[in-house]
Amino acid sequence: MLGLMQDWPLTLDKILDHAARWHGEREIVSRSVEGPIVRTTYAEVHRRAKRLSNALKGLGIKPGDRVATLAWNSARHIEAWYAIMVIGAVCHTLNPRLFPDQLCYIINHAEDQVLFTDLTFLPTIIERRADMKTVRQVIVMTDEGHMASVGLDGALCFETLVEENGEDCAWGGFDENTACGLCYTSGTTGNPKGVLYSHRSNFLHTLVTLQRDFMGLSVQDTVLAVVPMFHANAWGLPHGAALAGADLILPDRFLQAEPLAQLIAAERPTLMGCVPTIFADLLRYADEHPDLDLSSLSNAACGGSAVPRQLMRDFQERHGVRIFQAWGMTETSPVATYSRPDENAEHDDAYWDDRARQGRAMPWVELRLIGDGGVEVPWDGQSTGEIEVRGPWIAARYFHGEEDDEKFDSGWLRTGDIAAVDDRGYVQITDRSKDVIKSGGEWISSVELENEVMAHPAVIEAAVIARPDERWAERPLCCVVLREGSTVDAQELAEHLSERVAKWWIPEEFAFIEEVPKTSVGKFDKKVLRAMLADGSLEGRMRASSGGGREGGPTPSR
Amino acid sequence: MLGLMQDWPLTLDKILDHAARWHGEREIVSRSVEGPIVRTTYAEVHRRAKRLSNALKGLGIKPGDRVATLAWNSARHIEAWYAIMVIGAVCHTLNPRLFPDQLCYIINHAEDQVLFTDLTFLPTIIERRADMKTVRQVIVMTDEGHMASVGLDGALCFETLVEENGEDCAWGGFDENTACGLCYTSGTTGNPKGVLYSHRSNFLHTLVTLQRDFMGLSVQDTVLAVVPMFHANAWGLPHGAALAGADLILPDRFLQAEPLAQLIAAERPTLMGCVPTIFADLLRYADEHPDLDLSSLSNAACGGSAVPRQLMRDFQERHGVRIFQAWGMTETSPVATYSRPDENAEHDDAYWDDRARQGRAMPWVELRLIGDGGVEVPWDGQSTGEIEVRGPWIAARYFHGEEDDEKFDSGWLRTGDIAAVDDRGYVQITDRSKDVIKSGGEWISSVELENEVMAHPAVIEAAVIARPDERWAERPLCCVVLREGSTVDAQELAEHLSERVAKWWIPEEFAFIEEVPKTSVGKFDKKVLRAMLADGSLEGRMRASSGGGREGGPTPSR
Repeated sequence: MLGLMQDWPLTLDKILDHAARWHGEREIVSRSVEGPIVRTTYAEVHRRAKRLSNALKGLGIKPGDRVATLAWNSARHIEAWYAIMVIGAVCHTLNPRLFPDQLCYIINHAEDQVLFTDLTFLPTIIERRADMKTVRQVIVMTDEGHMASVGLDGALCFETLVEENGEDCAWGGFDENTACGLCYTSGTTGNPKGVLYSHRSNFLHTLVTLQRDFMGLSVQDTVLAVVPMFHANAWGLPHGAALAGADLILPDRFLQAEPLAQLIAAERPTLMGCVPTIFADLLRYADEHPDLDLSSLSNAACGGSAVPRQLMRDFQERHGVRIFQAWGMTETSPVATYSRPDENAEHDDAYWDDRARQGRAMPWVELRLIGDGGVEVPWDGQSTGEIEVRGPWIAARYFHGEEDDEKFDSGWLRTGDIAAVDDRGYVQITDRSKDVIKSGGEWISSVELENEVMAHPAVIEAAVIARPDERWAERPLCCVVLREGSTVDAQELAEHLSERVAKWWIPEEFAFIEEVPKTSVGKFDKKVLRAMLADGSLEGRMRASSGGGREGGPTPSR
Repeated sequence: MLGLMQDWPLTLDKILDHAARWHGEREIVSRSVEGPIVRTTYAEVHRRAKRLSNALKGLGIKPGDRVATLAWNSARHIEAWYAIMVIGAVCHTLNPRLFPDQLCYIINHAEDQVLFTDLTFLPTIIERRADMKTVRQVIVMTDEGHMASVGLDGALCFETLVEENGEDCAWGGFDENTACGLCYTSGTTGNPKGVLYSHRSNFLHTLVTLQRDFMGLSVQDTVLAVVPMFHANAWGLPHGAALAGADLILPDRFLQAEPLAQLIAAERPTLMGCVPTIFADLLRYADEHPDLDLSSLSNAACGGSAVPRQLMRDFQERHGVRIFQAWGMTETSPVATYSRPDENAEHDDAYWDDRARQGRAMPWVELRLIGDGGVEVPWDGQSTGEIEVRGPWIAARYFHGEEDDEKFDSGWLRTGDIAAVDDRGYVQITDRSKDVIKSGGEWISSVELENEVMAHPAVIEAAVIARPDERWAERPLCCVVLREGSTVDAQELAEHLSERVAKWWIPEEFAFIEEVPKTSVGKFDKKVLRAMLADGSLEGRMRASSGGGREGGPTPSR
C-alpha cells in the first residue's frame, strides 16, 4: 500500500526557487574575473538563470545533453549551473588545473556540446579548440566590452545571452533521478572517471550542509566557498547557502593567502570550506599580519586530506577560527563524515583528539570497515580496514563505465581510505590504501606521521612515503618543507617525533624539499615523490637521523 | 538520462538502524504507565523492535495491513511504531481523547487488524470490543505481572511477545512511497479523515527537526516530547532524536504542570515540543515555584494554535525558557513553518513581533496565500488569504477518500488557516477560515484579539468568537478565563485593549467563563462556545464594556 502524500520530486530548481522567494534579497558576492567585488542577490541570479536556460534551449540543448563549465567560483558560474541543470541537461564541471590533454579527454568522453568558460582559460581553449570535438559552442563568461579581445571565432557572450532571452522558462518537472551534474575524479591511476550526480543525490546531500551537527548552515551565516565549484559541487555549499538563505561569497581564482585573508576581514564570513593546504597558508599569513581579524569564521569546514591537529589548535587559539574536519570524495558528493564534538566540552586532549579525527557519518550515510579477506573490522579504535560507504549521495558506478569490481563491492563504494573507528563511531583515517607503509609486517600510518612532523613549528609541509628496505620490506621516508630561514635538521625532527610516536615509526631519513608536489585538487601528490625517490632525484636532499628507526625499536606487539 | 548514484530508499528502518549503530548508548527515558522513570537505549529499543516485528509477522501481519496503537508517549510505543512500520505495515495512531464512538468509527474505517494498547485504555476497549470489528488481536503494552488484572479474553502481553521472538528480522527493502502511518484529523465537521503518511514523507520531514534554523536538533540535545505520539507523529521528534542521537524523554500521560515541571527540573531537557495551553499551565506553575529550574529549555517548540506573545516573553524573561512557534497540521506531517529569528538580534519590539509570528516556510515547503476568487494575495504583511501548501510531506488526499475539492486545489492543500505574509516571508496567522469575524465588511483577527487579551496579567485564557449583529453583521465576543481571585471586569479589559488594537476591534461584550472548552488535541474548541452562545448558556456570564466597539470607531479604511 502506498502513502497518500504529494508527489514532489527533489529537483534542484526548487532550491533556487526557494532562495528567490524566501531570501530574494540575500547577497551573492563575487570577485569578478577582473578583480573588483561584484554584488548580486538570489532573486537576480534566479531571473538571470531563467534567461540563460532559454539561451541554452535556443542553442539546441535538450534533456540529457552535457554542458561543460570551465570556471572559478562566481555568481555567473552559479547562474550557469542552475540554467543547465534545471532544464534536465547535465552540468559537467571541468577542473582547470588538469593538463590540456586530460581536459580534452574528459570533454570528449563526456561528449560536451556547449562549453562555458571564464576569460582566464581562453588561451588553452583557443590552442586546443580543434581537439574538443563534440563542443558546438563556447560561451565566454563576460560582457560585450570584453568580447573584442577574446579571439575565438563564433564564441558567444554570456551577458548578451542573458540580455537577449526572456525570463519565462519552465524549470524541473522531471524524474528526481535525472542526471544533473558530472564531475571527473582526478584519477591517480588510469584515465579520469566521471561521477554522474542526480538531482535527488545533490538535493539530499544539500541537507548535510543545513544540519546543526554538521555544517549547520543558517540564514544567519555568510558562507565563503573557497573550495572550487568544479570540485564536487564546492561541497554543496552553494546549494546549501541558497536553501538556508545565507549570503554567499565567491573568490574567483584569488585563492592565495593574501587576497583570501583580505576578503575574510572585509566580508566577515562565518562559515568557509577549503582544503588544509590553503588553511595552512592562511595561518602563516594571519600570524604575520596580526592586525587582520579573521575571527568571524566560527565554523570553517576542512577536508580533502587529513587536517593537522596543530593547524586547528593554532588557528583557534591564536585567531579564534574554528576548523572542523569533513571527510569524503567526489564519489560521495562529497561529504560523508564530519567531526564536530560537543561544543560545551572542555577543550582537553580528548576533545582535540576528536577534532583531529574525521568524525561520525552523516545521517543517510552507512559506513563499514573491511579488512583482509573481505571481513568486517570491529569498531574498537585500533583495528583498521578500508572504508566502504553506502547512501543516497554515493556513486553506484562511473559514467560510461563498466561494472568496476575494484571500486564497488555489492552496493558499497570502496573508498580506498584506510581507517579505524572507535566505539562512539569516530572515524580516524590512517592512510590511503595506496599510501600505506608496511614495515616488518606492521602498519605505519603516513597520515599520523605527517601530522606529528607538521606539529613542529619549523615545518610547513610533510609528506611520508614508503622507501624499500631489504630487512623490513618498507621504511617511512619523510619529505619535509621547512619555514624560510629555519635550520632544523633530521636529528631534531627525529627527537621531536620520539615523544609523539612509537620509536619504530620514526624515519631513519628525512628529505628536505622546497615544496610538496600537489595534485590538480591541491592534495599532496605522493606519486611524484615516489617517482623522484625511484629516479634518484631526492638523493641529494636526504639526511639521516639517529634518533629512532626500526632497528632501535621494540618488537612490534601487533 | 538518469544519474548513476546508489539506489537507497528513504525508509524508516534506516533511522533506527542509524541510531543503534552510531548512538546506541543514548537514552530513552520514559515515565512508565505505573509512574516510575524507566531508562533504555536506542540499541535496546532497536533489538526489542526487531523481536516485536517478528511477533507481528507471527500474528499474520502483512505489508499494507493496519496495526493501531492506543498509547501515551513511551519507549514501548516507539518500539511498536518501528516494529509495525519497518515491515511495511501501517501504524495507525489512535487519539485516546476521542469519544469511544469516534474511536470505533476510525478503527473500522482503517480496518485495523491488531491493536496495541496501554493499560489505561482497557476499560474503553473492554466495553467497546465488540464494535471494533476488524481487530483480531489486542496487545497490552505491559509485562506478565500486570496481565492478570487485564480482564480481556485473548489479549496478548507486549513483554511476552518481545521475549518469545528472535532478533533476526529483515527490515525495509520496499518502495519508499510505501504507507507507514495513518493519523485521523480531529474533524471539526463531519467524520474524522485519515492522513496516510509514507516512509518517504516521514523520512524527509525528519530533516525539519535537524536543520539549524528550525528545531535544530543535535547530538547534544535532550528532547522532551510532550506532544503526543498519536498526534502527527509527535511532530517528528522521536524520529529526529533517533537520527541526531539525542536523548529522548517521554512523559506517558503525566502532562499536568506539576509532573512536567518536576520532570524538566530533574532530566534537564534542552528541547521540548508542546501546545500553548500546556506551556501556559507550566508558566503558572513555574511562577508559583521559583525554586524549580526550567532554564535548560533553550529551544521549546510550540504549535497547534497561535502562541501568545506575552507567554513567550514571560517564560523567557522570568525562567530562561525560549519558546519558538511552529505552524502546521496533521496533513502537513505536521511542521510547515517555524519562527526562529536571528539569535544575535536585539530583543526589541521587532524581534518579539517576529517571535509572535508563525515564521518562514521550511525548505521543501511551498506556500501561497489565496484570496477571494482564487486570486493569489501579495506578501505585503497586510493582505490576508487562505494558506495553501505543497511539498513532499503534505497530504495529497485522505485515506479511502474521494477527490476532495474543498481541501485540495490542483496539487495544493487548502489549510483553512487565514494569514498575511510580510515581504521577508514571515507568516502571521490571523484566523481559522471558519473562525473569521467580518464586521461591517472588514476582518477582525480573532487570534490577534485573543493574544492581546491574554497579555493582561489577570487573564489565563481568551477565546474570541463572532456574535451576530444586526447593523455590522458580526461583532467579536471575547470569552475570558480569569486567574483565581481576580476581579478584573469588562471595562478594564476594554481599556487594556484600547492601547493595543484598533478601537472598532474592541468587543462590546466579554463572557467570563471557568474554562475554554478544548478539542481532543487540546485546541480551543470554538464550536462549543458558538453552541453555548446560540443556546443562551453564555447569557448570564456576559458583561458589557463601554470602552470601544464598532459604534465608537472610525470608518475602517480598508
